[in-house]
Amino acid sequence: MRPIYLDNNATTRTDPEVVAAMLPYFTEKFGNASSVHDFGAEVDDAVRLARRQVQTLLGAAFDHEIVFTSGGTEADNAAILSALEAQEGRDEIVTTAVEHPAILSLVGHLEKTRGIKVHYVGVDAQGRLDIETYRRALGLRTAIASVMWANNETGTIFPVAELAQYAHAAGALFHTDAVQAVGRIPIDLKATEIDMLSLSGHKLHGPKGVGALYLRKGVKFRPLIRGGKQERGRRGGTENVPAIVGFGKAAELAASLMDEGPRLRALRDRLERGLIQRIGHCAVAGDVGNRLPNTSNIAFDYVESEAVLLHMNRAGIAASSGSACSSGSMEPSHVLRAMGVPAGALHGAIRLSLSRENSAEDVDRVLEVVPPVVERLREQSSAWRDRQARGQVGVTNCA
Amino acid sequence: MRPIYLDNNATTRTDPEVVAAMLPYFTEKFGNASSVHDFGAEVDDAVRLARRQVQTLLGAAFDHEIVFTSGGTEADNAAILSALEAQEGRDEIVTTAVEHPAILSLVGHLEKTRGIKVHYVGVDAQGRLDIETYRRALGLRTAIASVMWANNETGTIFPVAELAQYAHAAGALFHTDAVQAVGRIPIDLKATEIDMLSLSGHKLHGPKGVGALYLRKGVKFRPLIRGGKQERGRRGGTENVPAIVGFGKAAELAASLMDEGPRLRALRDRLERGLIQRIGHCAVAGDVGNRLPNTSNIAFDYVESEAVLLHMNRAGIAASSGSACSSGSMEPSHVLRAMGVPAGALHGAIRLSLSRENSAEDVDRVLEVVPPVVERLREQSSAWRDRQARGQVGVTNCA
Repeated sequence: MRPIYLDNNATTRTDPEVVAAMLPYFTEKFGNASSVHDFGAEVDDAVRLARRQVQTLLGAAFDHEIVFTSGGTEADNAAILSALEAQEGRDEIVTTAVEHPAILSLVGHLEKTRGIKVHYVGVDAQGRLDIETYRRALGLRTAIASVMWANNETGTIFPVAELAQYAHAAGALFHTDAVQAVGRIPIDLKATEIDMLSLSGHKLHGPKGVGALYLRKGVKFRPLIRGGKQERGRRGGTENVPAIVGFGKAAELAASLMDEGPRLRALRDRLERGLIQRIGHCAVAGDVGNRLPNTSNIAFDYVESEAVLLHMNRAGIAASSGSACSSGSMEPSHVLRAMGVPAGALHGAIRLSLSRENSAEDVDRVLEVVPPVVERLREQSSAWRDRQARGQVGVTNCA
Repeated sequence: MRPIYLDNNATTRTDPEVVAAMLPYFTEKFGNASSVHDFGAEVDDAVRLARRQVQTLLGAAFDHEIVFTSGGTEADNAAILSALEAQEGRDEIVTTAVEHPAILSLVGHLEKTRGIKVHYVGVDAQGRLDIETYRRALGLRTAIASVMWANNETGTIFPVAELAQYAHAAGALFHTDAVQAVGRIPIDLKATEIDMLSLSGHKLHGPKGVGALYLRKGVKFRPLIRGGKQERGRRGGTENVPAIVGFGKAAELAASLMDEGPRLRALRDRLERGLIQRIGHCAVAGDVGNRLPNTSNIAFDYVESEAVLLHMNRAGIAASSGSACSSGSMEPSHVLRAMGVPAGALHGAIRLSLSRENSAEDVDRVLEVVPPVVERLREQSSAWRDRQARGQVGVTNCA
């Protein structure tokens, strides 16, 4: 049976059109983009086109605002460190408790080793940012506020355009990790005050190993990786031409397929509602009314998500319990903890993340496979059996 | 006519076998290596194999000593910055005047902004390191000594095994940028005391956008890019699986084709001798007896290298005047300046860098094309005409 891939927030399948666009740049047009001969010139043109394709997807005003990196994590690191280096006297960071490890692991390190003060703004039970606390955390010492555009685990969307204005009112820079948002919801950077934005190729059907940092014209920047004069001196290292070309193509495809959003949302909603109705004792995590169209995070009581995922995997369905970066660690999700999800549900949360490649048949099969899996696992749980014995259990809706 | 590519120190053609090895990892086995389902597991195995292939090429003792990065520049930056962060009280760097910009640009920045003392050890007219000065520069404050294994512009090989011992005698770490050496000359790290080594995929017929930092077991390390727990917590960011797989394959091919070296050397020598005999008034730059087998750097008097390269390019021959990273800048090479190459020759230096893909026919054609190009250009030079008028010019050998 064809496997069903519902882990698109971890990574997506590279679109065959993207691969086709990349292929000539391995063995035919393989020059170094910085070389002056024809081998260099032809790839330099290709990099230029890719930069414009990414610019268009982001609605950036200038193509030179796009700095290609090795991925979202590098872009996140570069943004935060640059903001600290480029602004003397500002040594505080405002961020959220639900950021990706690419932000949290870095700022935690800065806190410990460089005495940087980090404000972690919390979220409510729906995963919505506490905007008043965010505003109060901003101040004369704030170098940068960094808030993700959409959360990788729940899909919850944050009001980044508004948050950027508050940051600017305090004289701070504003950065957003938009790795999950770009390509999934329309973005128009020139209509915002956002200074820096991170994105990643492989989350939008582009190749792995490439991403970009959007860097608004005029924003002071200090490179994370120093070397040659590539990327206007903002990122050293030979340009990863095939990946950049593929990233550009993926951006073009994502822009042209943005109207897939409603279909994806309908698919996701049918999947989510179907599971809730069939399973009961579960809760959807996140801001249900303001989410990415592709993401559903459902916390099932009385089961361990790892066990559910294992059985789903055996049935050919790939999903995850949170960010791939922390998978296997068995640590409950820091995002759900920040939302105050109770311990029982915390360990039974599953993230289903769809892409434009998923079909109605995929949803049908998941609705067939997952409910009996959860039921069997619950029958093995003594807490569940106690509850049943007390007559408290029936199929109840949730969320 | 088929173009002839003699700029392999800038980048190499990705081997078709490498591309074939990568292809399944874009559209079929596209999972995130950190994911726990089958999509993740199958790519995790592929990354493991690639790590062993790179380990074998380097003669490293353990596969976990290989940390995959986005390329040589990132690896260089990570090595230097880690050495400073991980060793309190040691705030000096010993390096050479002829390093790649991936080192020089970083240490120059550290010198300017963090008060780090950098010792730039010079070279002699043949490009050989002044070992006594190197030894004297090492001391109790030295965090790291970083000396390239082979120079990118001249191919000159440095005695890195010996230099590592001197660094250790001073209690300092030793790093080598081996981007040009790996895959071209045999390397056996376990027989040396080298602590860290940078390499790059695209210099050895692997893909761009991937490289590695060799990190000897037990050497303290602080990551440059922080995020998830990838690479044992030493490099955050989703693993660039297709590129890592390709890099592994390229390493395997390079190891199995190491005996191509003598053929390459013979080809390079015939090319170099042929040009010298036909052109005259030129000098080979570098340590002729101790060079990479693929590299020739010839400085022609009375011509501008940019003009020669332009005409060569029109004839379908790609070469360069030095590192691609500084091409187009028209700045004379910092490597040749450090060697004390006189101003006239400095501006007429051309780097020819071969690969296993070059043939005897390629050499024949270069020997046909380049001499008349240089002759024509010299005829346009007033200095050359003056010299001719004074009867001082004939075809004389050089080097």
